[in-house]
Amino acid sequence: MTPVSRFPVPALAALPADIRERILAVQEKAGFVPNVFLALAHRPDEFRAFFAYHDALMIKEGGLSKSEREMIVVATSGANDCLYCVVAHGAILRIYEKNPLIADQIAVNHRKADLPPRQRAMLDFAVKVALRSAEIEEADYARLGEHGFSDEDAWDIAAIAAFFGMSNRLANAMSLRPNDEFYLMGRIPKR
Amino acid sequence: MTPVSRFPVPALAALPADIRERILAVQEKAGFVPNVFLALAHRPDEFRAFFAYHDALMIKEGGLSKSEREMIVVATSGANDCLYCVVAHGAILRIYEKNPLIADQIAVNHRKADLPPRQRAMLDFAVKVALRSAEIEEADYARLGEHGFSDEDAWDIAAIAAFFGMSNRLANAMSLRPNDEFYLMGRIPKR
Amino acid sequence: MTPVSRFPVPALAALPADIRERILAVQEKAGFVPNVFLALAHRPDEFRAFFAYHDALMIKEGGLSKSEREMIVVATSGANDCLYCVVAHGAILRIYEKNPLIADQIAVNHRKADLPPRQRAMLDFAVKVALRSAEIEEADYARLGEHGFSDEDAWDIAAIAAFFGMSNRLANAMSLRPNDEFYLMGRIPKR
Amino acid sequence: MTPVSRFPVPALAALPADIRERILAVQEKAGFVPNVFLALAHRPDEFRAFFAYHDALMIKEGGLSKSEREMIVVATSGANDCLYCVVAHGAILRIYEKNPLIADQIAVNHRKADLPPRQRAMLDFAVKVALRSAEIEEADYARLGEHGFSDEDAWDIAAIAAFFGMSNRLANAMSLRPNDEFYLMGRIPKR
Amino acid sequence: MTPVSRFPVPALAALPADIRERILAVQEKAGFVPNVFLALAHRPDEFRAFFAYHDALMIKEGGLSKSEREMIVVATSGANDCLYCVVAHGAILRIYEKNPLIADQIAVNHRKADLPPRQRAMLDFAVKVALRSAEIEEADYARLGEHGFSDEDAWDIAAIAAFFGMSNRLANAMSLRPNDEFYLMGRIPKR
Amino acid sequence: MTPVSRFPVPALAALPADIRERILAVQEKAGFVPNVFLALAHRPDEFRAFFAYHDALMIKEGGLSKSEREMIVVATSGANDCLYCVVAHGAILRIYEKNPLIADQIAVNHRKADLPPRQRAMLDFAVKVALRSAEIEEADYARLGEHGFSDEDAWDIAAIAAFFGMSNRLANAMSLRPNDEFYLMGRIPKR
Repeated sequence: MTPVSRFPVPALAALPADIRERILAVQEKAGFVPNVFLALAHRPDEFRAFFAYHDALMIKEGGLSKSEREMIVVATSGANDCLYCVVAHGAILRIYEKNPLIADQIAVNHRKADLPPRQRAMLDFAVKVALRSAEIEEADYARLGEHGFSDEDAWDIAAIAAFFGMSNRLANAMSLRPNDEFYLMGRIPKR
Repeated sequence: MTPVSRFPVPALAALPADIRERILAVQEKAGFVPNVFLALAHRPDEFRAFFAYHDALMIKEGGLSKSEREMIVVATSGANDCLYCVVAHGAILRIYEKNPLIADQIAVNHRKADLPPRQRAMLDFAVKVALRSAEIEEADYARLGEHGFSDEDAWDIAAIAAFFGMSNRLANAMSLRPNDEFYLMGRIPKR
Repeated sequence: MTPVSRFPVPALAALPADIRERILAVQEKAGFVPNVFLALAHRPDEFRAFFAYHDALMIKEGGLSKSEREMIVVATSGANDCLYCVVAHGAILRIYEKNPLIADQIAVNHRKADLPPRQRAMLDFAVKVALRSAEIEEADYARLGEHGFSDEDAWDIAAIAAFFGMSNRLANAMSLRPNDEFYLMGRIPKR
Repeated sequence: MTPVSRFPVPALAALPADIRERILAVQEKAGFVPNVFLALAHRPDEFRAFFAYHDALMIKEGGLSKSEREMIVVATSGANDCLYCVVAHGAILRIYEKNPLIADQIAVNHRKADLPPRQRAMLDFAVKVALRSAEIEEADYARLGEHGFSDEDAWDIAAIAAFFGMSNRLANAMSLRPNDEFYLMGRIPKR
Repeated sequence: MTPVSRFPVPALAALPADIRERILAVQEKAGFVPNVFLALAHRPDEFRAFFAYHDALMIKEGGLSKSEREMIVVATSGANDCLYCVVAHGAILRIYEKNPLIADQIAVNHRKADLPPRQRAMLDFAVKVALRSAEIEEADYARLGEHGFSDEDAWDIAAIAAFFGMSNRLANAMSLRPNDEFYLMGRIPKR
Repeated sequence: MTPVSRFPVPALAALPADIRERILAVQEKAGFVPNVFLALAHRPDEFRAFFAYHDALMIKEGGLSKSEREMIVVATSGANDCLYCVVAHGAILRIYEKNPLIADQIAVNHRKADLPPRQRAMLDFAVKVALRSAEIEEADYARLGEHGFSDEDAWDIAAIAAFFGMSNRLANAMSLRPNDEFYLMGRIPKR
């Protein structure tokens, strides 16, 4: 079995208090510590900046729902072949959407997913930012506008695709292992 | 929700007897009819040839285990962005391996999967057949040989990658929808 | 000179009767045995399934002429850099079309071939199935429809592109050598 | 002339105090405000996280010199076709290296730059993280090790390539305009 | 039938004397006027430079045989999907080599052609110049050296690949039609 | 510091008179000898043909200004990652345009450059010729026509893209070093 990360993973006790507290809080909520927290804690300053950025993009009001934000993560992480992000954010997306199928659909090929045209357009834009950002132009924003996305929404889509473009590259470089727990989360419909 | 296929899907009662019987047999065994059977039944002759070919490659003795054959399907279907094959054969692989994690690992990036060097080499070869077959050369076979694969095994790997290269293209062209059942299969460890 | 295949090629006498008969029949008709028959006969079950599938797609009534079916083979085999299929099916196409130029035109770049818009559209679709099947969508089918192709025709185009995508990968993996006879066939106009 | 960004650029006076102070500090040091500060200030939380991350990676002790860190930025930004980052970080690199040629060399093709093998290996790794991160494996780290890079250095290289992969995508999406001042900086050798 | 070129093709009588004479000379030798002469004659100065360059690379003494030079043309023109150059230079190669098969083999996939290791190495280098010239490095020259190629030979290989890279782009842009005569030339072994 | 070329560079005194004179003339005008002249002089016949072709395309009347011709060189050389051509022709473009910014903008990403729609369309066409010439079709010419380009202008654009496609491959293969002088030329606005 591959380790959490090919880089050293610090013991919780050895971490600065603020990082340990964030980790304990997420553990309390999720029931386990997602490996990205442990792996990035090897570099406390980068950990703090990473999660500050993450929260600024993912936990906020705005035109995109929390679930749509996770769709962007899953689609672009699939395009970047990032195991950690596909598995971990796929779990979150299933829970938000209460849909056990949607994450695999979007990760493999968002064009074949059960999505309305609005979300298809959102993911087309996100995947273009992920794979061919130099070719983004005003016509791409216009297409988003036709589906009701404001310019602020477009920034969000681009920024999430860009941030997880970083995250995907970090996870690939460190061979970040998804926690076993993620694979099953959100797959069994609650009654 | 997207349909089973963008092409017509025949009613079971309208099918030739041999095809109906095969479908009923698979239904008996699996508890449901995988959509690929229904979608391909639109063309009975192609249905017969497809499953004859499938069986010749996937159900046989030889140097590759049944589970290794499914690994090849999942890795190459991931490389070809084929939703149906990733989801359906991912399910089969989880069951064969009694491992709820391995299919997602291989589908997203086989290089990060929990695999011994032998299976890593097998999938490297399979993915090269899937994506750059014109560049296959003797050095690729030699590398397989170093991991204990015979020439007959190499044929099997190449043929499975090639057959599912066809299957992936068919499924993508017809927007073949994976059955909902596949997504959860093999994810909950039996006790 | 490279051999017929990098894998063993069975002697005709050693083959199962049905396979030997098919090979003798093709030899009678063509005057020689195309190497794909000999190379695949190494695996009788795969041989049978392969040619059953081939016949189901290539020898049938329908909206596509036999010649158009071969055009699809040549264009997609060129896109996949498959020597055997370009040379062997190029020969067949020249004979069907009674046109000594068309096969090379389509194999190198179908956009520059002497083709009416209908066949150009057919080959655009086929090459997209061959190279980027995950991106096929309804707009592609609509474009075919504008050129008079029915949905059943579209299935045929996709299925032929997919089947020869398999065939190309097999031939590349086994370094299948085209028979010398194919190179000249159909190049000298009959009077 | 294209604007600073296709998104709104806030007036300095309207900004939160901490952001305004950071901007004034950089203006004092550089003589002008790099446009990335103004463009990102449209989103104060993202601004803060972005620069915290930037500083954690770029302003620190470690095995990589400040100049080597900028080389990574320039090489990967060139690979991602990001005008802002090539021009702005090219300027910084010229100044750090006191070399008016090195930035253009690295941005266009780092293989042709006046670099010792150590820095060539560093940039090969960085560009692989930028373009094919899913294929990074232990052999890549071993090659870095042969050139004297520690594992912590390798993290730095990967993290800088990943962070600017994000930055490049943001800049491309917002059409971030490099300040005119950057183009000439560091090109005229001081005496 | 597509025309010789999508641009105007001048009448022979209207051409400057030196160009007309070159064309008449080639017609005397070949029995017809290859279309590239007619199409480029639309621009006399470019015509003169093009053929001066062509002759400097293709008609000269040196470590490469005339036939090897044509192999480079055919392999790189295949890689660039250039119909005119594959067909016209394929004909010349067949005649030089007295081999009716070699041109199609090299055009479709030089790795599968009946070639000794020396010529395989030559074409590997040529195709890399054609498709990924920015990645050419000393190791590529060393590999040529192992097969007995001098540095001057390496220049020739690179220069021929580069010149026909230009020629391929011109021919593709003008939809240059190969003369019908080329398709059959060299295919019927002389006795 | 890398040398002028990985191939021998002849002494001026050893050159044929016509070549020496051309080199002395360019030295008189530019104040130095651009390295491409020295490197190509290793092969006098190729030198003569190269510059004859260059002059036929770059020094002429016609619908494209001299500056637009250099834009094409810079954009396509950027697309081909050619250090020499980006740096040397970037210098010439800055001087022609009296614009110290335009060359870097076009070399990194012409879509983000300060250009009117006409020149954007010109560079889109040129970059398509450089990277995907087999896909050029009448629709591309029609788009040029909408921006006022004649068919003769279109030939010029394609021919310049093709010629520098050759030049880029030569420069990359020989590791042609740009003269230090080019880097600063045209960057300091004259008053």
